[in-house]
Amino acid sequence: MAGAPIEFHFDFNSPYGYIAAHKIDALAAKYGRTVDWRPVLLGAIFKVTGGAPLPDLPLKGEYSKRDFARSARFHGVAINMPAKFPFSPVAASRAVWWAKGQNEAKAHALALALFQAALRDGKDVTAPDSVADIAAASGFDRAAVLAGLNDGAVKQKLVDAVDAAIREGVFGSPYVVVDGEPFWGMDRFDQLERWLATGGF
Amino acid sequence: MAGAPIEFHFDFNSPYGYIAAHKIDALAAKYGRTVDWRPVLLGAIFKVTGGAPLPDLPLKGEYSKRDFARSARFHGVAINMPAKFPFSPVAASRAVWWAKGQNEAKAHALALALFQAALRDGKDVTAPDSVADIAAASGFDRAAVLAGLNDGAVKQKLVDAVDAAIREGVFGSPYVVVDGEPFWGMDRFDQLERWLATGGF
Repeated sequence: MAGAPIEFHFDFNSPYGYIAAHKIDALAAKYGRTVDWRPVLLGAIFKVTGGAPLPDLPLKGEYSKRDFARSARFHGVAINMPAKFPFSPVAASRAVWWAKGQNEAKAHALALALFQAALRDGKDVTAPDSVADIAAASGFDRAAVLAGLNDGAVKQKLVDAVDAAIREGVFGSPYVVVDGEPFWGMDRFDQLERWLATGGF
Repeated sequence: MAGAPIEFHFDFNSPYGYIAAHKIDALAAKYGRTVDWRPVLLGAIFKVTGGAPLPDLPLKGEYSKRDFARSARFHGVAINMPAKFPFSPVAASRAVWWAKGQNEAKAHALALALFQAALRDGKDVTAPDSVADIAAASGFDRAAVLAGLNDGAVKQKLVDAVDAAIREGVFGSPYVVVDGEPFWGMDRFDQLERWLATGGF
């Protein structure tokens, strides 16, 4: 018996969101669940929460850079932090919201491809043309992606997702919600798994 | 072959430090290590880092209260957050620094007793008399503890520990350092264990 889809909120700038993107679908499937991938804009969320990108914080910034790399090794995921960080996640996020309107599974593959382009392969994901190239390599029609990026309804989907995330209490990435229970961080995937296995503890 | 002691920096206000205090000695012993318990004052550290107590932060504060309780259940540790939080950790921290001058193992037992008094049993650990009562129950001489709390050298040990922690980059609690490698948070104990098991990854 499958439960409701698991909400997976993430920002394309988030190294922990990137690691989680490699794990979340398999973890959910193990417990008969699907995942609703929801790219959001942490910059907009930080305006509400007073948060800031980790690398900008005193002491915590230096630690975080080390922890990004070590956590990726720990979880067996290749990472290469981009020279420009944070970068604008708007185009990549819009592309995923557009792709979700086509096919949810293909949208996950596109999101993972965009994450890997940005946080592993040193590619630009901020320009529409770059995003369209990556989407085309993921099997989408390049012209349709470019049109989607300019579609007001797609833009609004991203705005609505950010608003919904703030209303739900999302303040970081990854932020996973299972049946109303929130889990912030790749480092809560152990608790997330026990929750999925037991229905709550 | 035992390596150098593991540094365990913590603040008595820290729920994650409290959970870690139940785990760190056994984890270290499993890999032939001892632990240097180092109570610090996050309030002083936050003045340098611009940090703030978790419950004060928008959105993150509400999440944190839920996460304190769920993380404690996940790790099998009883917790009851005190009505007054954060509280002054100065007297409890001084008592531990005094006790470390007597006997490191007994100092760990005292620190755990103080943590449990504050974060499980709803007892005051801010007044010297309260701290002395808890120390007496842990097998220390009550009058000697009270004298220690007023000893300038003991007070200086705590000041020095905070300064050393800031120099080392400590910005939160628990903060564990193994052979120069820092691990922030109870949720890095999985990485900490692999590091101890493998010598680094």
